Amino acid sequence: MAVARPSLDDLDAGIRAGDRAMLARAITLVESTKPAHFEQAQALLERLLPDTGGAQRLGISGVPGVGKSTFIESLGGHLTGRGHKVAVLAVDPSSGRSGGAILGDKTRMATLATDPNAFIRPSPAAGVLGGVARASRETLLLCEAAGYDVVIVETVGTGQSETEVADMVDFFLVLMLPGAGDELQGIKKGILELADMIAVNKADMDARAAERAARDYRSALHILTPESANWSPPVVTCAGLSGDGLAALWDEVERHRQVMTASGERDRRRREQRRIWLWRMVEGRLLAALKRHGGVRETVTAVEARVAEGRLPAAKACEEILAAFLGQAAVDA
Amino acid sequence: MAVARPSLDDLDAGIRAGDRAMLARAITLVESTKPAHFEQAQALLERLLPDTGGAQRLGISGVPGVGKSTFIESLGGHLTGRGHKVAVLAVDPSSGRSGGAILGDKTRMATLATDPNAFIRPSPAAGVLGGVARASRETLLLCEAAGYDVVIVETVGTGQSETEVADMVDFFLVLMLPGAGDELQGIKKGILELADMIAVNKADMDARAAERAARDYRSALHILTPESANWSPPVVTCAGLSGDGLAALWDEVERHRQVMTASGERDRRRREQRRIWLWRMVEGRLLAALKRHGGVRETVTAVEARVAEGRLPAAKACEEILAAFLGQAAVDA
Repeated sequence: MAVARPSLDDLDAGIRAGDRAMLARAITLVESTKPAHFEQAQALLERLLPDTGGAQRLGISGVPGVGKSTFIESLGGHLTGRGHKVAVLAVDPSSGRSGGAILGDKTRMATLATDPNAFIRPSPAAGVLGGVARASRETLLLCEAAGYDVVIVETVGTGQSETEVADMVDFFLVLMLPGAGDELQGIKKGILELADMIAVNKADMDARAAERAARDYRSALHILTPESANWSPPVVTCAGLSGDGLAALWDEVERHRQVMTASGERDRRRREQRRIWLWRMVEGRLLAALKRHGGVRETVTAVEARVAEGRLPAAKACEEILAAFLGQAAVDA
Repeated sequence: MAVARPSLDDLDAGIRAGDRAMLARAITLVESTKPAHFEQAQALLERLLPDTGGAQRLGISGVPGVGKSTFIESLGGHLTGRGHKVAVLAVDPSSGRSGGAILGDKTRMATLATDPNAFIRPSPAAGVLGGVARASRETLLLCEAAGYDVVIVETVGTGQSETEVADMVDFFLVLMLPGAGDELQGIKKGILELADMIAVNKADMDARAAERAARDYRSALHILTPESANWSPPVVTCAGLSGDGLAALWDEVERHRQVMTASGERDRRRREQRRIWLWRMVEGRLLAALKRHGGVRETVTAVEARVAEGRLPAAKACEEILAAFLGQAAVDA
């Protein structure tokens, strides 16, 4: 039996009342590839926006094997136990159309999934209008409107996804494995600069190795100029499985919120994130429209390889691509 | 008396013959803001492209005060003394229309400026069609066609310029100051990941501090995954003023060239740089055309602040901006 699609009013009221089914329906709208659903989703968001922004937005990244699921399950339980309502979203730009089973799968976080004060949502599938990050960002807003006061955004850590997640949260936590010497090699480009905190996980397996790793990360972070004069990213150790260190870790997240709120940087960061996000989306959609354009496709086929081989000046090829898309007059303007 | 503008044939032949005046004239074309000059410059480049690519392309970055000018003067002299022809270009996106006196000023490198085997060119002024980086990239090609077998591209190290320079060279060298403890804090975002080598300069002032700094940078680099399995960025100490360490430093640059050429990575990096460059230029010009558009400007004024304040969904604002630029039909396509 097909269920009638709820109206905008139903969704609005349902989400504000914390109705999980309505929240899920709204997220499905946000993730839809259909233009009509896009319109509805935007109308809903516009109504809900005044009641968003209330959550501590926490991004979590780390390589496969670092224990993200267990860590989030443990941290989530710790937080619901303290009265928080916790939403967990996943961002995996590589997830297929079938529904992103890789991340956010409820079977990964069996206990948290049955917690009435937790809401787990797997990654939107690739192919969403405006990209996976757009859907996640809007889902985060929906969760806030539904009363979740902690939203955890997990990234699988591939390609652009870490920057995108860092640009939608207040606090970006990087999980690392303990290890020494060559094993430490493995920090990806740019990740140190995104981190508001590094947590060496699985410290229960070898406490000394974890401490050694923490020391090394501390000295690496030490030579970087911190993003804010008010926050030097700390390095802590913890164990997702036993829960050791999670309370202290969350205290740091809270301390960050207090410091950044007091200094005004939290609001500034959010405003800047929204602006960056708008223009990144404009750029992405604009480039996608260009690449879809028939005349452009022909031109690109004709010039791209010659530019790569160093046989055609890039600026000349650029002119030809732009002229094919906008017309020569617009390029010369 | 106005000098007649040389013909394309004159420029082509003059540059190939190593005529410095002709090279300078061609660079002026490349840096011009006039569309007709752009056409000429592209035609010239297309003719010269088959004879470019012969130089070791070396990017040099470092904060003000690190001693870049003295270092380059010294390294340049060392290289011309060994039979190289050395071109020094500067990239300073902030340089004014009056001609970029901040960087590349010949008075900064008085000895090298009078060396017949060296060619020094200050940064193109901001406002060049396609940006300062486009002009620098094309100037680099002109210098190669003129027979310079080492091209040093110096960046003032602000904003985007380091990435842009790293994306036009074979080897990116980061100069650092000796110092200990808190003084070490000062590595800018992403710079560690760009470095093919770090050189602690001014080691003659305090050799022990320089060694200590080198050790710290080594351990920081150690935890990053290197770009290539064949190259772990070394950290050396040197002194631009006395010339100490420059021969050893250049040996490392040469070794990098041999290793990367043998593995095929040098050619691959250059091909990838050209492709990235093409698309970055397409994006930049496309966004500039959008922002120039009258209807877009109105729409942006109406929506941007509301997005930043969290009162309007970014995706909705994005739709409106794109519709103003491309028409609604193109956006829906």
